[in-house]
Amino acid sequence: MDPASLSVQEIGEFGLIDRLRNLLPYGAPSVLVGIGDDVAVLRTEAGRLLLATCDCQIEGVHFTLPAVPPSLLGRRAAAVNLSDLAAMGGTPLWALVSLMVPENTPVSLVEEIYRGFGEALSRFGAVVVGGNTARHPDRVVIDVTLLGEGDPDRVILRSGARVGDLIIVTGTLGASRAGLECLAADLSGVDEPVRAAAVHRHWAPEPRLAEGRLLAASGRVRAMIDVSDGLMGDLGHLCRASGVGAVLYADAVPVDPACDAVARTVGRDPLEWALYGGEDYELLAAVDPGGLADITQAFQEARVTPCRVIGRIVPREEGLQCVRSDGTAVAGPDHAWDHFRKEAL
Amino acid sequence: MDPASLSVQEIGEFGLIDRLRNLLPYGAPSVLVGIGDDVAVLRTEAGRLLLATCDCQIEGVHFTLPAVPPSLLGRRAAAVNLSDLAAMGGTPLWALVSLMVPENTPVSLVEEIYRGFGEALSRFGAVVVGGNTARHPDRVVIDVTLLGEGDPDRVILRSGARVGDLIIVTGTLGASRAGLECLAADLSGVDEPVRAAAVHRHWAPEPRLAEGRLLAASGRVRAMIDVSDGLMGDLGHLCRASGVGAVLYADAVPVDPACDAVARTVGRDPLEWALYGGEDYELLAAVDPGGLADITQAFQEARVTPCRVIGRIVPREEGLQCVRSDGTAVAGPDHAWDHFRKEAL
Repeated sequence: MDPASLSVQEIGEFGLIDRLRNLLPYGAPSVLVGIGDDVAVLRTEAGRLLLATCDCQIEGVHFTLPAVPPSLLGRRAAAVNLSDLAAMGGTPLWALVSLMVPENTPVSLVEEIYRGFGEALSRFGAVVVGGNTARHPDRVVIDVTLLGEGDPDRVILRSGARVGDLIIVTGTLGASRAGLECLAADLSGVDEPVRAAAVHRHWAPEPRLAEGRLLAASGRVRAMIDVSDGLMGDLGHLCRASGVGAVLYADAVPVDPACDAVARTVGRDPLEWALYGGEDYELLAAVDPGGLADITQAFQEARVTPCRVIGRIVPREEGLQCVRSDGTAVAGPDHAWDHFRKEAL
Repeated sequence: MDPASLSVQEIGEFGLIDRLRNLLPYGAPSVLVGIGDDVAVLRTEAGRLLLATCDCQIEGVHFTLPAVPPSLLGRRAAAVNLSDLAAMGGTPLWALVSLMVPENTPVSLVEEIYRGFGEALSRFGAVVVGGNTARHPDRVVIDVTLLGEGDPDRVILRSGARVGDLIIVTGTLGASRAGLECLAADLSGVDEPVRAAAVHRHWAPEPRLAEGRLLAASGRVRAMIDVSDGLMGDLGHLCRASGVGAVLYADAVPVDPACDAVARTVGRDPLEWALYGGEDYELLAAVDPGGLADITQAFQEARVTPCRVIGRIVPREEGLQCVRSDGTAVAGPDHAWDHFRKEAL
């Protein structure tokens, strides 16, 4: 009988680990001891900074099964962590993955999660060096810690924005929220290709690692963050850390076409989803205006996801707002995504 | 109103993080960016190896509330990870903690968990550099990643044991299992001080960091592991990694007095709990026989938890067994602790 058709209870913890090891990228010169030991032993490079981040995906909170294919779930668990490193201009190196599943979970489901997780890491040269499997009474939880490194002169924090900086964002916004709406309800008026595009953006966000490294390498980016809590929410984090305010130009916010189509179908404002929707995993940065031309050219030459100017950094006293071309402010909910509060949108 | 009397939903994710930051040790010269950012930025020392481990505690699997005081739960989440670093002779430096709780969880409960977690780390000089809080629909889950460092010449793996090595273990065994039995059933025949001692060993294991560092520094330890899956289980891991077998002397196994008392009260074999019970978090090592005297002396001078010889490493063909002084083998369950299989004891 193929072990993949058994449950994790039937093959046991150590049988499971043996199978998973073969699905994951785990060999690298820097990894002295990796999967299978209690502790990973890693060689860091002299003169580099170590970067560490963690983020979890909980069934019933961040995803539902079988709505999401397990391999995409693994990919997403990797992507949300890769995105955090991207926003520092860092290079991902090593991941530890903690997987909690009910004992009757099919081995094949666990393997698909790991396959997607491993593939997402491999694309960016990172390997799995350890982790943990445990029994969870009633749901799947994936908690990932991602380690990476950065150049001490190049690591970008949230806290360096200055008044007069331009605010730029990569890609488009709001599609993840549109995908979530499509998953939550049967939106019969939405065309299938639009629905599929929105749901894919929700399940399979693209971490902007190449873009983050280009931005960091430009030497002209003063603060950066990834858009996980929503554009306004994350801009708020960046502004608070930098002690500044910000004005966004509503007309310049790159609303994703799928967001636009889904929102209009259900009679909602696409801009609101783009500003407050969250989980887009694009990069948001404050840049020295004199560096914009070089950044734009570097993005074109590298053929990466384009970025555009969507606002400017202003004194703290002016707060955080999004204005239309006629000068009126866009009203929004009074808080952005919060993992504990009820969503207000 | 004191925020501690509110639920996490009422103060929100960012209000919670602000409060927790004040409860945790987080300042250290090596921490360039710590709690509050998406990514921790850490400075590693040239010529040292990075060590990384993770382990989780799940309500209903590893603990029940309110049976365990929340501060002890935090302490335990730290201890099980500290123990893994101890078994390599490593030095803990930085922790990331992922806490998942229902939205109606009192802030005070979360704070107590973090307080215990932070105190356990502080005792060994480690600090919290990041983490994540998320809503879990119905239970508390704490997942910890602990990073540390080790001397490249001194890090001890599982895989170096050689035939003829002595097997040593620190402290006593079986008390954690006895504590678990006391928590699971009302064992009315057990004296309260014995019960309290056993339960304390279960909830508040002592990571043997000083002992691990002494053993690593001796230069005479060839393989080491901590006893989390049970003495026989972890000895099995060590033997497989080293390609050797092992004989344990039943009379030499240090059965904890509380284990002895509880097991006898309920008509069970204390030795079985000491061999297979798990979660003792003592250190198990294979040492060069010529180094034993120096190790014993170093332990006495440092006034740390004593270790004793409990067996020897034999050729792989002789397998893994525990023998009595009359030469008969101690029969055991055919597997040790496994997170997915049902416990056989």
